[in-house]
Amino acid sequence: MTQNDRRYVITFACPDRTGIVARISTFLAEEGGWIVEAAYHTDPDTDWFCTRQEVRADSLPYDIDELRRRFLPVARQLAGAADWRITDTGERKRVVILVSREGHCLYDLLGRVASGELDVTVSAVIGNHADLGEITRAHGIPFHHVPFPAGDPDGKAAAFAQLRQVVDTHDPQAIVLARFMQVLPAELCAAWTHRAINIHHSFLPSFVGARPYHQAHQRGVKLIGATCHYVTAELDAGPIIEQDVIRVDHGDSIADMVRKGRDIEKVVLARGLRWHLENRILLHGNKTVVF
Amino acid sequence: MTQNDRRYVITFACPDRTGIVARISTFLAEEGGWIVEAAYHTDPDTDWFCTRQEVRADSLPYDIDELRRRFLPVARQLAGAADWRITDTGERKRVVILVSREGHCLYDLLGRVASGELDVTVSAVIGNHADLGEITRAHGIPFHHVPFPAGDPDGKAAAFAQLRQVVDTHDPQAIVLARFMQVLPAELCAAWTHRAINIHHSFLPSFVGARPYHQAHQRGVKLIGATCHYVTAELDAGPIIEQDVIRVDHGDSIADMVRKGRDIEKVVLARGLRWHLENRILLHGNKTVVF
Amino acid sequence: MTQNDRRYVITFACPDRTGIVARISTFLAEEGGWIVEAAYHTDPDTDWFCTRQEVRADSLPYDIDELRRRFLPVARQLAGAADWRITDTGERKRVVILVSREGHCLYDLLGRVASGELDVTVSAVIGNHADLGEITRAHGIPFHHVPFPAGDPDGKAAAFAQLRQVVDTHDPQAIVLARFMQVLPAELCAAWTHRAINIHHSFLPSFVGARPYHQAHQRGVKLIGATCHYVTAELDAGPIIEQDVIRVDHGDSIADMVRKGRDIEKVVLARGLRWHLENRILLHGNKTVVF
Amino acid sequence: MTQNDRRYVITFACPDRTGIVARISTFLAEEGGWIVEAAYHTDPDTDWFCTRQEVRADSLPYDIDELRRRFLPVARQLAGAADWRITDTGERKRVVILVSREGHCLYDLLGRVASGELDVTVSAVIGNHADLGEITRAHGIPFHHVPFPAGDPDGKAAAFAQLRQVVDTHDPQAIVLARFMQVLPAELCAAWTHRAINIHHSFLPSFVGARPYHQAHQRGVKLIGATCHYVTAELDAGPIIEQDVIRVDHGDSIADMVRKGRDIEKVVLARGLRWHLENRILLHGNKTVVF
Repeated sequence: MTQNDRRYVITFACPDRTGIVARISTFLAEEGGWIVEAAYHTDPDTDWFCTRQEVRADSLPYDIDELRRRFLPVARQLAGAADWRITDTGERKRVVILVSREGHCLYDLLGRVASGELDVTVSAVIGNHADLGEITRAHGIPFHHVPFPAGDPDGKAAAFAQLRQVVDTHDPQAIVLARFMQVLPAELCAAWTHRAINIHHSFLPSFVGARPYHQAHQRGVKLIGATCHYVTAELDAGPIIEQDVIRVDHGDSIADMVRKGRDIEKVVLARGLRWHLENRILLHGNKTVVF
Repeated sequence: MTQNDRRYVITFACPDRTGIVARISTFLAEEGGWIVEAAYHTDPDTDWFCTRQEVRADSLPYDIDELRRRFLPVARQLAGAADWRITDTGERKRVVILVSREGHCLYDLLGRVASGELDVTVSAVIGNHADLGEITRAHGIPFHHVPFPAGDPDGKAAAFAQLRQVVDTHDPQAIVLARFMQVLPAELCAAWTHRAINIHHSFLPSFVGARPYHQAHQRGVKLIGATCHYVTAELDAGPIIEQDVIRVDHGDSIADMVRKGRDIEKVVLARGLRWHLENRILLHGNKTVVF
Repeated sequence: MTQNDRRYVITFACPDRTGIVARISTFLAEEGGWIVEAAYHTDPDTDWFCTRQEVRADSLPYDIDELRRRFLPVARQLAGAADWRITDTGERKRVVILVSREGHCLYDLLGRVASGELDVTVSAVIGNHADLGEITRAHGIPFHHVPFPAGDPDGKAAAFAQLRQVVDTHDPQAIVLARFMQVLPAELCAAWTHRAINIHHSFLPSFVGARPYHQAHQRGVKLIGATCHYVTAELDAGPIIEQDVIRVDHGDSIADMVRKGRDIEKVVLARGLRWHLENRILLHGNKTVVF
Repeated sequence: MTQNDRRYVITFACPDRTGIVARISTFLAEEGGWIVEAAYHTDPDTDWFCTRQEVRADSLPYDIDELRRRFLPVARQLAGAADWRITDTGERKRVVILVSREGHCLYDLLGRVASGELDVTVSAVIGNHADLGEITRAHGIPFHHVPFPAGDPDGKAAAFAQLRQVVDTHDPQAIVLARFMQVLPAELCAAWTHRAINIHHSFLPSFVGARPYHQAHQRGVKLIGATCHYVTAELDAGPIIEQDVIRVDHGDSIADMVRKGRDIEKVVLARGLRWHLENRILLHGNKTVVF
């Protein structure tokens, strides 16, 4: 990233009323901020307004903390309850990846990082099995094996505590469940709200829960899909970030569906993670706005 | 259709074993039958074999009834319980279309018929509202208005009896529910097994039942879909013939979804109906094989 | 359309600099304008900025002419050369459709108009063959048959003059070449700049010119497409508005490609026409920005 | 692969006539061969027939060489010029991958091999740059750096000779040009006919040659694509195996197109390679039949 690619990203949401865009854009113009990308959305059902703006960092004569200080009265004026953030694309993001045995999503993410496409630090990979340790370490990334004893609630709770401890050490901007086969307990969902991202191997809300390709095969659908969503306490019911599908037919066995579906899982997860890290996703109720 | 485009279509299904293809193809070769298209499928879970073969009608020195007579011992030999049909692409198919108020699927089908793309006779259109009578008659097709009184079970039963009477008069190869908003009673589903085709405006099994676009909007999905399926007694649970999807985003209102979804509904229904009329669809349990 | 669905649509383009968004949105805020939808784009290669804003008509205490008068100094201040328009969604748009013999695009558009999905007046349909007159008149739309004599340049010029006269009588916002098989002469392209929309039955720039499905079949592509574009003097080279594709395989004959391609042509043309009429398309060089 | 997953794959092509299917399937039935999958195609323009049949290896009481011996008279009888092959899915296929600096396709293929999805031996990776050596060796695969001196025809010829020597040592079933930026000389194209597979980063025949994403951006297309094809002496003109596309819009820079396009390149190449190795692709003129 060259210096003039560095941007401050402002996301802002509040009840809709006349003049919000003018207030924000006038503030930015007065500060000399060069808006590179801007998007707006108003939810007509709830009259909830939100926006995302990218400003060239080098167009402002001060740093991000000063920008936040100066923006604060604008945000207050527009709405006491306004929800806003300003992030810096020059800050390298940290990601922790949770895996089990199936490696395709991990391989895909590591390849994207290694080739520079995904410009993040993978702080750690945590597996409830050890299978994916070798490839992780080959990429120079620490791998933590945290076994989850089946049928042992106390053991599981201890494992989750250990997992949480490793994750929280890195204070990551994203915790990616890359085909991690354990259901996060409610307190972890709460602790990692809007940071924990899951890839589910079906076109939700179809085929919630276990073995979705088996369910899809059983129902005889003609397309299978994958869904990237934020993790919430209710299984596979969190806000959907991205989905895609691929065609199957009567000749496809469950194994074929698993194989074809992987290509969709990988790309849907990668897109969702990118948008999350670029601060493109605003939550509104149980839905996402993806700018 | 020129004479040498005319074909006999054989569909055949039986328990799998060695030699079925050889038996059928040898029979056809001995008769001089020129196979233009052939497809096979074996379901590995149930060891159920099925095939579809298109033979040039002018390659056989006799008519379809003679072909059926000669094929009978082959079918018997392969399996007492063999399920088979031979149809003639030269026989013009009859279709009855059931509609309500939403016209997009009807307009689409009538346009396909008028332009010669769909080479069928639409014997009748039946509406529980009168709205689509005019366009139907403009295409020279009889329109029957059969009102369904809301909240009057006896009235509904009488309406269905009248509907059935009109449909059965034409003995159609396909009864198309082109956004017909009434749920067929079980006895009609049974009477029209493998002939009644519905278009449901969601990607089943997501969003069964009423107002699927509202359900999709509520859930915040990123793709909406449509499903063409055979009608069975359980609502929206029949064998799926075809599905497709289209992308939506947070900016799409329910009205936008309805509008975008129509383009998918039309094309999914048209494809499903074509395959049905070309005798390309075999049923196996609650699933379809589409050759 | 209810009164509060009525909107004024502002499109505006000028060289990029700091403060444009602020100036426009402050103007709108001061006038009390309620922005319902806003989009921005800057072309980084040419530093060309453009925007589209939808404002609720009932949020302004005056009419569209007054809005234009008041906006003029803003536009002037931002750039002498600024390119801008303000249109009214409450003004019913007029469309003239040019056809030949292939009716699928015409049937599709007429169906969309009849069902209320496309809320426009089709002022006239002009065909160089008479085939599609009957369906046009069944929709209550005037049909003009203007024959184009093959191999007779003078006759062709006369036909185009007649065509132009019919079109210009209606002063339409869009002239749709719905599989019209004649190449528009340069002077008509010029006269109808940014108003004449063509559907080409290939994924441009592949397969320019005649018989693109034949070319596609010959090359053995695995997807076929359709392209909606503005008509310019160079054949099939105008700014692309929308494209889509559909899968084909070795089993598809040219006739199959023609049939499958139609479904893409129809939907691509309908989308492009809708966006054009909603004033969503800005031209920049030979490219479009579709807001 | 368990023993009863092992299959013999017969591909066969000859001029079409009545009785071919019967002859082949009768032969297989008489030998006791259990057909697991069968597909047929006749090209109506050239009356060229072809088929692919998968037979369970354990259904035959002898080995593949004996099967070839016994099939030979059948092939001869059907047509002297018949083109046929019998391959064994139990034989592990060898692949050599040619790369330059862009690693996404290589990462993707190595991930598929490592996770067991693609059950092949990558015998070697050859790069005209050394960049991708480390990841290759991390997967336990030999990496050969063969520099191609720019502007030095003799040096290039020597490099190609060295490349050929490395490739031919392994006698691979597939030579994959995974974004290898050198144009193969005609004699290598000839030597590796129907074995050298390229991924081109456009939807061919659009944007042949260098920098297709730049060309696509310049033309303003609304979808970008990728094409997997067999390498022939004419650049980017070989038989197309598979293609796919992804949507872009005016907001996408060339860099965005490059990034989005990668996801299509990876999956299109992986599909094409799989089909090739499964002996699913028959060549007919400059086109492929993909069974």
